Amino acid sequence: MIIIGEKINSTLKTVRTAIEKYDAAAIQELAKKQYNIGASYIDVNAGELHEDEPERLAWLVNTIQDVLDVPFSIDSPNPKAIEAALKTNKNPKPIINSITDEKERYNAIVPLAAEYKTGIIALCMDDEGMPETVDGRIKIAERLVEKLTREGIPPGDIYIDPMIRPIGTGSHYGMVALETMRRIRAEIPEVHIVCGLSNISFGIPARKLMNRAFLVAAMTAGMDAAILDPLDKKLMSFVYATEALLGKDDYCMNYINKFREGEIEL
Amino acid sequence: MIIIGEKINSTLKTVRTAIEKYDAAAIQELAKKQYNIGASYIDVNAGELHEDEPERLAWLVNTIQDVLDVPFSIDSPNPKAIEAALKTNKNPKPIINSITDEKERYNAIVPLAAEYKTGIIALCMDDEGMPETVDGRIKIAERLVEKLTREGIPPGDIYIDPMIRPIGTGSHYGMVALETMRRIRAEIPEVHIVCGLSNISFGIPARKLMNRAFLVAAMTAGMDAAILDPLDKKLMSFVYATEALLGKDDYCMNYINKFREGEIEL
Repeated sequence: MIIIGEKINSTLKTVRTAIEKYDAAAIQELAKKQYNIGASYIDVNAGELHEDEPERLAWLVNTIQDVLDVPFSIDSPNPKAIEAALKTNKNPKPIINSITDEKERYNAIVPLAAEYKTGIIALCMDDEGMPETVDGRIKIAERLVEKLTREGIPPGDIYIDPMIRPIGTGSHYGMVALETMRRIRAEIPEVHIVCGLSNISFGIPARKLMNRAFLVAAMTAGMDAAILDPLDKKLMSFVYATEALLGKDDYCMNYINKFREGEIEL
Repeated sequence: MIIIGEKINSTLKTVRTAIEKYDAAAIQELAKKQYNIGASYIDVNAGELHEDEPERLAWLVNTIQDVLDVPFSIDSPNPKAIEAALKTNKNPKPIINSITDEKERYNAIVPLAAEYKTGIIALCMDDEGMPETVDGRIKIAERLVEKLTREGIPPGDIYIDPMIRPIGTGSHYGMVALETMRRIRAEIPEVHIVCGLSNISFGIPARKLMNRAFLVAAMTAGMDAAILDPLDKKLMSFVYATEALLGKDDYCMNYINKFREGEIEL
């Protein structure tokens, strides 16, 4: 499972403050914690800093690569901020989080992905919005993969995000998400499938429980990457358990080791 | 979700003692607790009482139907015990737990199911044993459904159990179980799919966590019934969450109600 650690996000108040104060130690600490627990990518987001976003996002990249060799997930819809971060980056191949098939956003960001040879998270959304149906999402996913491949970004560098809508606003949205994942895994097997887990539970109580159930269901449906909080021990316990269930953990050795290390929480 | 409450089982020491002492109050209490939390069936098992099994199993049925109108899951491989229980039963249509496609077991039990018009749990196993592959299990499932239907047991009364083997003994057994469920749901959509959850985690640590993850994965793959402990609040919380995710809980009303009633445990 590809874990994209979501903690360094300027929408979190303490993180925003750390970015504003150029508090390198606080940022490095948060990056290290996520890395040590097993994050494959560290997401960096400075969107709340508005016009300072490019400079601050580059600062985040610099600050973290001073202490860690981990790849980044560069989290911004702003091409200037993305470019500033990519110019600064010296760590292994990052991913850009994210594009859609909206013309303006696509055209501004994809050339950066091609130039810097990054991975890219592509949301199933276009200028007509977010489709209500599975078929509508699959169509956008196919179109995005076709276009991106033509630009020189191989399928293995593409992370399709089916776009999760809250089940509290429509009882079918869980199935729409899961069925979209299942079909992408079957029809475009070379791409990664990713999502931001917690959207599913927006507006309902006991959100963390619902997020855990959704993690397991989505992994079963074919999701192989997730943007989540790797410091949430109970959530990560379900990652380890589900990997074992899906045959991705020989003899449950990783699960058993995590248990021995005290990383499994019931 | 069809919940078959597993607590009244003579392999549990306190239950065995209660059966030996004809302690009706203890048995009734355990049945009521499971029923009140939402068990659709109460499993009754007196297998540890050996030659007394028929009389004791009938006593369990009698004792519980004195206070509850819940259908039973009559849990025995012994035709004499099953018949004694069916003769005594006055509650709504029970299920027999279980048959296989082993000739002797099949021939001794299926006539009882047909005569008493019961549901039946059918394990994917025959005289050659438990197949290693998904295809092997599907073949037995198809054969069982075809034969049972011919005997007058409609597909809606058949509960196919793919047979869960512990992932600790083979990393592929999770996928074998899930893929068997997915294919049965696609190829024989009218039947129920059931399993005993906890087999999956035999021999590994933190079994309850693995059982919860497997519950969610199996429900996602098409399982609509499970033999489990309904008094395990954390496990049941995942039943409610997954029903909502799979579009079986309009506006998450049941999930939200369970939360308000304190039945969701994080």
